[in-house]
Amino acid sequence: MYLGAIEAGGTKFVCAIGDHDGNIKERVTFPTTTPEETMRRVVEFFRPYPLEAIGIGSFGPVDLRRDSATYGYITSTPKQQWVNFNFVGEMKRHFSVPIGFDTDVNAAALGERRWGAAKGLQSCIYITVGTGIGVGAIVEGNLLHGLMHPEMGHILVRRHPQDTFAGVCPYHGDCLEGMASGPAIEKRWGKKGAELADRKEVWELEAFYLAQAIANYILILSPEKVIIGGGVMKQEQLLPNIRHHVMEFLNGYVQHEVILQKMDEYIVLPGLGDNAGVCGALALAKQALDE
Amino acid sequence: MYLGAIEAGGTKFVCAIGDHDGNIKERVTFPTTTPEETMRRVVEFFRPYPLEAIGIGSFGPVDLRRDSATYGYITSTPKQQWVNFNFVGEMKRHFSVPIGFDTDVNAAALGERRWGAAKGLQSCIYITVGTGIGVGAIVEGNLLHGLMHPEMGHILVRRHPQDTFAGVCPYHGDCLEGMASGPAIEKRWGKKGAELADRKEVWELEAFYLAQAIANYILILSPEKVIIGGGVMKQEQLLPNIRHHVMEFLNGYVQHEVILQKMDEYIVLPGLGDNAGVCGALALAKQALDE
Ligand SMILES: Nc1ncnc2c1ncn2[C@@H]1O[C@H](COP(=O)(O)OP(=O)(O)O)[C@@H](O)[C@H]1O
Ligand SMILES: Nc1ncnc2c1ncn2[C@@H]1O[C@H](COP(=O)(O)OP(=O)(O)O)[C@@H](O)[C@H]1O
Ligand SMILES: [Zn+2]
Ligand SMILES: [Zn+2]
Repeated sequence: MYLGAIEAGGTKFVCAIGDHDGNIKERVTFPTTTPEETMRRVVEFFRPYPLEAIGIGSFGPVDLRRDSATYGYITSTPKQQWVNFNFVGEMKRHFSVPIGFDTDVNAAALGERRWGAAKGLQSCIYITVGTGIGVGAIVEGNLLHGLMHPEMGHILVRRHPQDTFAGVCPYHGDCLEGMASGPAIEKRWGKKGAELADRKEVWELEAFYLAQAIANYILILSPEKVIIGGGVMKQEQLLPNIRHHVMEFLNGYVQHEVILQKMDEYIVLPGLGDNAGVCGALALAKQALDE
Repeated sequence: MYLGAIEAGGTKFVCAIGDHDGNIKERVTFPTTTPEETMRRVVEFFRPYPLEAIGIGSFGPVDLRRDSATYGYITSTPKQQWVNFNFVGEMKRHFSVPIGFDTDVNAAALGERRWGAAKGLQSCIYITVGTGIGVGAIVEGNLLHGLMHPEMGHILVRRHPQDTFAGVCPYHGDCLEGMASGPAIEKRWGKKGAELADRKEVWELEAFYLAQAIANYILILSPEKVIIGGGVMKQEQLLPNIRHHVMEFLNGYVQHEVILQKMDEYIVLPGLGDNAGVCGALALAKQALDE
């Protein structure tokens, strides 16, 4: 018997079949188009397999309140056709197995905790820096929810004194996502991140903003591990630079040896690499089965 | 049978005897001096009562890792005589009952959740704005811990464009506590907060910084209730001003009716008033008993 996994992103869907140990047996990727067409492909992919449960890590915002009439819906996304899409309901119409559902980043955090860089820990955060900036968190052993799910990518950051860029967030302008997402980099410097590899100042500024946000996440959540991935993190000079600035921002205040002396083990790339999201969805399936 | 409660602050200790419903039967307050003298008074106060358990909400930093050799210690406090003080150990030497131990602000959050403004909710944060700025949090029904306990009072904030004050935090200068604690107000304006009641610009600036931090706490933790107390909040003009700025900072991004339309019920003063801390310690005692 297998578990099904869906990593539902705003640009592409990844569907996979896996086992209870996080091994992917089969996978397929297709672009996110209309809900009708996209879901038809999802259902087609899973149909042949005897599944025990399915996990979905979805772009959002999504409704995760179990007692809500719209639990399992994508709610107010900028992707018009997906607004109020009943994701869990649609899956349940086709598959009568337990369905796990959470945000894409919460799923990735769960995957990393079960099989990746945060294995065995009671807390961690997973940050993705790509088209947007999203963060999933595990605290006291559980995925973090609340009034809604967190939207940590939009925290307010302190502007770099030499930076006059207005930011690209439609809500806040110069919030973290507005200043440091892939599209922010492209708009600020007039080129895609991948083409700016040799421009030191680009990655210095990027590290300044990401480190500042991470310092605040550490002060607020006190995670045992900080995992950071996404397209922008393909720039290898970024991670050491981020670690350096985090230490500078905290300035010795958080007196734990991991932060004072083992920054290289504390802020790390995903242990599951680009599979964090899909393995996370697998972990959501497993969790749904255990409930 | 009774429960014992200790609200251990940097300037004063409050000890109380209470019942399982949060009612205080007896209480005493004395200044925090040396550990020897202070603990002698603590022990004297509790000695006559048949206690089932004792809860301690302590100033910190404190070690809360159950598997740590220094669990229950106050660790690196600026109060020299209390550095490495084995608080739980000292209590256990005198009373052979379960001892609950956490930070003062986590205790207050727990108290508010059990008997105060966050009754029945699965998440909340409790912020105190006084000599320092501290925050306790409950997430998914549990007190938030991690690598260490959070230190949310020290998050980095965006400076108000007209504000040139350097800040008073010895670690960060202009972090939240550095810009908005009681001593920061006193240093910036040359008078104690209580004497500045009629100076509109003081409370406008104060609300700007506190609201910014609260906006970030909301984006990161998504609490169902935000409770804010402490000496500085005695300024009644502050709370409406804070609510106003939080809405401005979030700018419609967090689309939940409580935040969009019921800010007056969302960001509130402590339901337990000045008893949040000591009732919280009582709640810690109760929790220790149930474990
Ligand atoms: N090698 C790279 N260096 C810098 N930026 C990159 C690199 N590769 C991709 N990006 C940026 O990352 C963003 C895409 O992020 P990604 O995590 O791949 O997808 P998404 O966030 O859409 O799921 C784009 O803005 C792109 O410019
Ligand atoms: N009415 C008031 N208006 C403004 N600030 C006040 C007021 N009362 C106390 N404060 C300030 O609050 C701080 C003390 O905070 P408090 O919460 O009472 O104690 P502590 O944080 O030491 O436990 C002091 O800096 C004091 O100036
Ligand atoms: Zn934003
Ligand atoms: Zn500070």
